[in-house]
Amino acid sequence: MPAPFSSLSDFRAVLQALPRSDAQAEAAARDRNGQLTKPPGALGRLEDLAIWYAGWRGTGRPVLERPQVIVFAGNHGVTARGVSAFPAEVTVQMVANFRAGGAAINQLAKAFGATMAVHELELDRPTADFTTAPAMSEAELVAALAVGWQAVDPDADLLVVGEMGIGNTTPAAAIACALFGGQPGEWTGRGTGVDDAGLALKTQVVAEGLALHPDRDPLEVLRCLGGREIAAMAGAIARAHQARIPVILDGFICTAAAAVLALAAEGALDHCVAGHASAEAAHRTLLSKLGKAPLLELGLRLGEGSGAALAIGVLKGAVACHSGMATFAEAGVSDG
Amino acid sequence: MPAPFSSLSDFRAVLQALPRSDAQAEAAARDRNGQLTKPPGALGRLEDLAIWYAGWRGTGRPVLERPQVIVFAGNHGVTARGVSAFPAEVTVQMVANFRAGGAAINQLAKAFGATMAVHELELDRPTADFTTAPAMSEAELVAALAVGWQAVDPDADLLVVGEMGIGNTTPAAAIACALFGGQPGEWTGRGTGVDDAGLALKTQVVAEGLALHPDRDPLEVLRCLGGREIAAMAGAIARAHQARIPVILDGFICTAAAAVLALAAEGALDHCVAGHASAEAAHRTLLSKLGKAPLLELGLRLGEGSGAALAIGVLKGAVACHSGMATFAEAGVSDG
Repeated sequence: MPAPFSSLSDFRAVLQALPRSDAQAEAAARDRNGQLTKPPGALGRLEDLAIWYAGWRGTGRPVLERPQVIVFAGNHGVTARGVSAFPAEVTVQMVANFRAGGAAINQLAKAFGATMAVHELELDRPTADFTTAPAMSEAELVAALAVGWQAVDPDADLLVVGEMGIGNTTPAAAIACALFGGQPGEWTGRGTGVDDAGLALKTQVVAEGLALHPDRDPLEVLRCLGGREIAAMAGAIARAHQARIPVILDGFICTAAAAVLALAAEGALDHCVAGHASAEAAHRTLLSKLGKAPLLELGLRLGEGSGAALAIGVLKGAVACHSGMATFAEAGVSDG
Repeated sequence: MPAPFSSLSDFRAVLQALPRSDAQAEAAARDRNGQLTKPPGALGRLEDLAIWYAGWRGTGRPVLERPQVIVFAGNHGVTARGVSAFPAEVTVQMVANFRAGGAAINQLAKAFGATMAVHELELDRPTADFTTAPAMSEAELVAALAVGWQAVDPDADLLVVGEMGIGNTTPAAAIACALFGGQPGEWTGRGTGVDDAGLALKTQVVAEGLALHPDRDPLEVLRCLGGREIAAMAGAIARAHQARIPVILDGFICTAAAAVLALAAEGALDHCVAGHASAEAAHRTLLSKLGKAPLLELGLRLGEGSGAALAIGVLKGAVACHSGMATFAEAGVSDG
């Protein structure tokens, strides 16, 4: 099925028409939660997660059986500026590793019963170096959004989107700074491991990009400063929203993609929960701007969707308790 | 197989003879970790977890396929003092719920592929009210430790111990205060949900118990202020150590049981990781005294092993990445 947009203005319209959570299902889940054999609130955040998930799935007693992990890969012209500790050819090498099942995300998807898809976006045609030109044309952005949109399995009941793209913490930092303001240095970090000089260079590169592209419309920010895999993640997150599929956000780059949607349409991330807080320091800032509290804080900074995939376990646990537990009445337990 | 102790002094000897982690396996795991297709350190705490797990399992490339969850249930004479929001008969009702598969821990054990066993310890014969007498005789303590020891499946490759025992945050607070000092009020909390008056009463009850039983030998503390399910957890954790089965600690009560071992024998908890920080505030203090950083912080305060069971997912993810990922050489990926 083709994506329901063929221009950026189409995509804007799609974002404005996204559905809301099912208030009736959410109320039913809240009611059920109050009857389960445990002291009120004793499952902490698991209770809120289950109720939120129920609202999006449209039933007071949902299941979580078909999580999907999608990894999008893209290459970035800005790597010519030397912003990464790894050479750009690692992107294509890692795509081969994903296909062969050898990457971290393969193990995590398997461990949590998720299907996994990999989509590389024109790896032999990197985006333009955003310090000299917009990263993408409008047509290129729309094409990348559509790849993401179409990659989502409409029968999935949970989505994790991850990425691989050498150099992509630099566009992510540029996007975050353009959307939320502050100094470039507040949004740049060491990524896969640049040294002090590398970090100073990244910060300078981000500043140059922001100066060259002053438009702060979120989708223009994505076009001028983003990358194909980042746009694809945004397209996939929007598609999941339309199909009422809850999303677990991954790290800094995934969250930057999501932030574009958040500023483009109110409530665009209501179907998303933050899987983890990455070791990339600006990720925590970005999550806080979006009002999302991370489920896990384990110091991951790998990308690929790895932190979000790990959080599938937490959400599975929450839904399993909610839908599987006996009520006080069913179990004949005194409710205090 | 009977437990290898029939007296408290036998048990003390067992604790002094517990094995260490396999340094060679740990070194092999550390070496492997450095070759995996990811930037160094990018999996954060998952890397340390996998290496630690490898050391205890005695192989550089371990699997995690047979987690066991054991729930111990006991009743407490101190409930006569009104320290819980729930009546004492809930303990036996919840045991029935565990057996019928209706409790939170049943859902979590199933979600993470763990076997689950339930052991009730003389529910019709509560421990003595520790404000008037020692909770247990030496024979009763040894019997409870033995139940825990024998409940562990020696073929398991991970252990979670949980508990059910109306009123048992009160003995846990008394144990923690006796072991680590400070004021009773620093160690008492709302448990399943007592009000301000209930909290003041609990604190008073803990203070009375501490005054009546001045011996600070850890196993004497367990005998005088503990409970059968708490002792059983200690026995199971010790048995897991002897069998080199890593343990995920649960909440405040489980950690109080573990703390007894930590003070009784150096390194007794080296095979344990903290599954979560509970909403019972003193749990965080207790973990910090033990030098354990929680894997999850999701506001759970249910007991049953629920927080630790949820953390099985994190450990499974860590081990899956460690043992399943390709090395740079295998995948033909440039390592920066």
